[in-house]
Amino acid sequence: MVPHGDPTRNTIEELSQLLSPGDVVIDGGNSHFADDQRHAELLTRVGVHYLDCGVSGGVWGAERGYGLMVGGAADVVERCLAIFDALRPPGERADGFVHAGGVGAGHYAKMVHNGIEYGLMQAYGEGYELLQASPVVEDVAGCLRAWTQGTVVRSWLLELLVEALHQTPNLAGISDYATDSGEGRWALIEGIQQAVPMPVLAAALHARFASRQEVSPALQAVAALRDQFGGHGTGPSPAR
Amino acid sequence: MVPHGDPTRNTIEELSQLLSPGDVVIDGGNSHFADDQRHAELLTRVGVHYLDCGVSGGVWGAERGYGLMVGGAADVVERCLAIFDALRPPGERADGFVHAGGVGAGHYAKMVHNGIEYGLMQAYGEGYELLQASPVVEDVAGCLRAWTQGTVVRSWLLELLVEALHQTPNLAGISDYATDSGEGRWALIEGIQQAVPMPVLAAALHARFASRQEVSPALQAVAALRDQFGGHGTGPSPAR
Amino acid sequence: MVPHGDPTRNTIEELSQLLSPGDVVIDGGNSHFADDQRHAELLTRVGVHYLDCGVSGGVWGAERGYGLMVGGAADVVERCLAIFDALRPPGERADGFVHAGGVGAGHYAKMVHNGIEYGLMQAYGEGYELLQASPVVEDVAGCLRAWTQGTVVRSWLLELLVEALHQTPNLAGISDYATDSGEGRWALIEGIQQAVPMPVLAAALHARFASRQEVSPALQAVAALRDQFGGHGTGPSPAR
Amino acid sequence: MVPHGDPTRNTIEELSQLLSPGDVVIDGGNSHFADDQRHAELLTRVGVHYLDCGVSGGVWGAERGYGLMVGGAADVVERCLAIFDALRPPGERADGFVHAGGVGAGHYAKMVHNGIEYGLMQAYGEGYELLQASPVVEDVAGCLRAWTQGTVVRSWLLELLVEALHQTPNLAGISDYATDSGEGRWALIEGIQQAVPMPVLAAALHARFASRQEVSPALQAVAALRDQFGGHGTGPSPAR
Repeated sequence: MVPHGDPTRNTIEELSQLLSPGDVVIDGGNSHFADDQRHAELLTRVGVHYLDCGVSGGVWGAERGYGLMVGGAADVVERCLAIFDALRPPGERADGFVHAGGVGAGHYAKMVHNGIEYGLMQAYGEGYELLQASPVVEDVAGCLRAWTQGTVVRSWLLELLVEALHQTPNLAGISDYATDSGEGRWALIEGIQQAVPMPVLAAALHARFASRQEVSPALQAVAALRDQFGGHGTGPSPAR
Repeated sequence: MVPHGDPTRNTIEELSQLLSPGDVVIDGGNSHFADDQRHAELLTRVGVHYLDCGVSGGVWGAERGYGLMVGGAADVVERCLAIFDALRPPGERADGFVHAGGVGAGHYAKMVHNGIEYGLMQAYGEGYELLQASPVVEDVAGCLRAWTQGTVVRSWLLELLVEALHQTPNLAGISDYATDSGEGRWALIEGIQQAVPMPVLAAALHARFASRQEVSPALQAVAALRDQFGGHGTGPSPAR
Repeated sequence: MVPHGDPTRNTIEELSQLLSPGDVVIDGGNSHFADDQRHAELLTRVGVHYLDCGVSGGVWGAERGYGLMVGGAADVVERCLAIFDALRPPGERADGFVHAGGVGAGHYAKMVHNGIEYGLMQAYGEGYELLQASPVVEDVAGCLRAWTQGTVVRSWLLELLVEALHQTPNLAGISDYATDSGEGRWALIEGIQQAVPMPVLAAALHARFASRQEVSPALQAVAALRDQFGGHGTGPSPAR
Repeated sequence: MVPHGDPTRNTIEELSQLLSPGDVVIDGGNSHFADDQRHAELLTRVGVHYLDCGVSGGVWGAERGYGLMVGGAADVVERCLAIFDALRPPGERADGFVHAGGVGAGHYAKMVHNGIEYGLMQAYGEGYELLQASPVVEDVAGCLRAWTQGTVVRSWLLELLVEALHQTPNLAGISDYATDSGEGRWALIEGIQQAVPMPVLAAALHARFASRQEVSPALQAVAALRDQFGGHGTGPSPAR
């Protein structure tokens, strides 16, 4: 598990000179699936096997087990099953592990997983904000908590949001600056290249981009246009 | 639990003539929160109490308990707790029940819950579609199943999607005509009125609207424009 | 032309007591089309005719003529044509005037016009921002100006943006706080009620809402969630 | 002007062997701006100059002149001005021509231009559709035509839409299958890579993708989920 891009590439190149034929390299980081093809080719030339493994679970995985998505040759996956079984959640293997396909399929699946994650998080965020804005709801945190059992929207992310609100009532002082680690971008770009409509992922990703802007040139243009045709005036906002 | 709108209103009016002071009416249907105000006023005039109760859980609630969000006066909610306790999921009360606020707060919370639901479902749908379109992933259903334990995107809806794919591999023959019961619309309209940005809910709702169109006049206009300036031509689509 | 809502309603009520049968009231403001029905009924009871007239053109209309969209009975529209001809742009009547339909149709058309306007402005804004962010484009204002003749994206709004950039290079100091006068909201709400997919209008409107927030609770929730599962940390943003 | 990708690349390679030092190659097609760097390097090695020129105007350009956006070295641009002046619209040079920056800037600007175009077209399309759906507007085409003079939304694209509706009332029989030539995708991908929020472009592009699907797997998943939790049923749509 090495940061994707150059660090992973350099590590693979180094390993290609150190390992012996029949050895296996498992990239458990967040490489782009196109890199996997290159890394596998590089290692194959020296007889080393390659698996790509998407890993989900965050800081909680150490305790509960990690969801694993693996790409590569079936016999190599088979050979490494004991490793995957040790890392994945207990219970049926298929509930926390998949051999998704050939080289790259593991990281592809992880990329899609993360793309979904963006949409889920933004959906909960929007609902939380609408509750906050409600003229009638008084117990916002209580509503979210009441959804954790029995309801259609129950999920682990919802439980985490309930926990966050318990730790920091009203999320007071928490910045709305939302970074992104890159996999959501890859998922949207891949969607574009496959002509898959992903309006929810796009909306969620763009909301994060916007959250990080000190000033939005696009909205400056909108405000300037309103002034041009309507004489609405522009100037420092009252709020920011 | 009566369909919202006229059926609920008529029932409330009828009950207002049959019930005695001190009685309690609980609207467990999906009324709009603005209707709750009117219904409560109507009943209050004859001394009857009113609670609005959003109920989530679908057809599974009978077995596992329903998530409940209640609006109304605290003493009336208190008086009815035994009813809510009998319906909600077992375990801590606050994990499946909330007294969200005054009259209307229960249905408001349910409306927001459903708005979130739209975003979650579309997020999973988009991810499923990207996996389907992937040039490297071979076991799409296996990926979704592998996410049900340990991963960040695990949820009840994900489990239902896994079950749907188990029952109907590749969702073959399932129509992509996605109806909406109205609460997502209310949530988005309320968001507009409160100036809450809800791009994910909007995207999810619009995707459903589009799914139900035989022909999209907007896209006809786009196609006609492309032909006007580019001579790209128009005509019957190859596919539909 | 009176501000919509109570001011218009009060004026109509007052006029209904002052005018004589056969008189005509023209609401040239931005009333909601549903109000038109009520206003027309109120005036009809005293024999006064009612036309609703959407007016576009902003501060430039005085010079160039206003685009006019009128709703009401054909014979009343006919009777008032001289007024409309005096206000509309010179040239063919149909290029700057329409009798759109019965009562309310004029304001409905104006509402749609404004909904389109939101999308157009945001589209130009996004393009302007991408040019600004470009690693290769050096003359952003020059690009926009070069589009004003001959290109597919030429329009009056584009000319206004070129003018704004001429007056305020880089829009330096112009706030990105973009207000909305309400018609975009009505258009989106009407779209929801008619089940018309309007993803571009929704995106444009939500971008304005977001531009006015000091803090986004939704993005606070997203940031809090990232910290919960990934230990990514939260805190004051570096930029805002 | 050669189709982008391999045809352009092959042509550049061929020219690099035929031309003499000091000659100039102008790529007036729709190449990706990253290709421009490679093409310029290839030609520079043999002393040949390279300009990239984005061209807008469609089939109408021959008559009215083309909007031109050029990238490359200033002295080379200067040398070719007579060519650009012959192609651009009459009037001031800066209203239909820009030297946008170094190599690639011309195609970058054209890419952004096309990205804007997607948003504009979808905005008009949505407005057209809402007028069509209106319960009060009777003369939809008349409304659009009345916007061509004096209004805030007047533009060349609007005039083309009016013309299309004149040629084909109600756009009857025109397919809603909207293709894309690729530059909108590039613009959105570039926006993602520059972290520029482009929700309107994304919405417009995704609407086109969706218009071309016979079946939407994402919406099949949504429909399947609704059936799973709500027993709403699935099946062939009534309409499609």
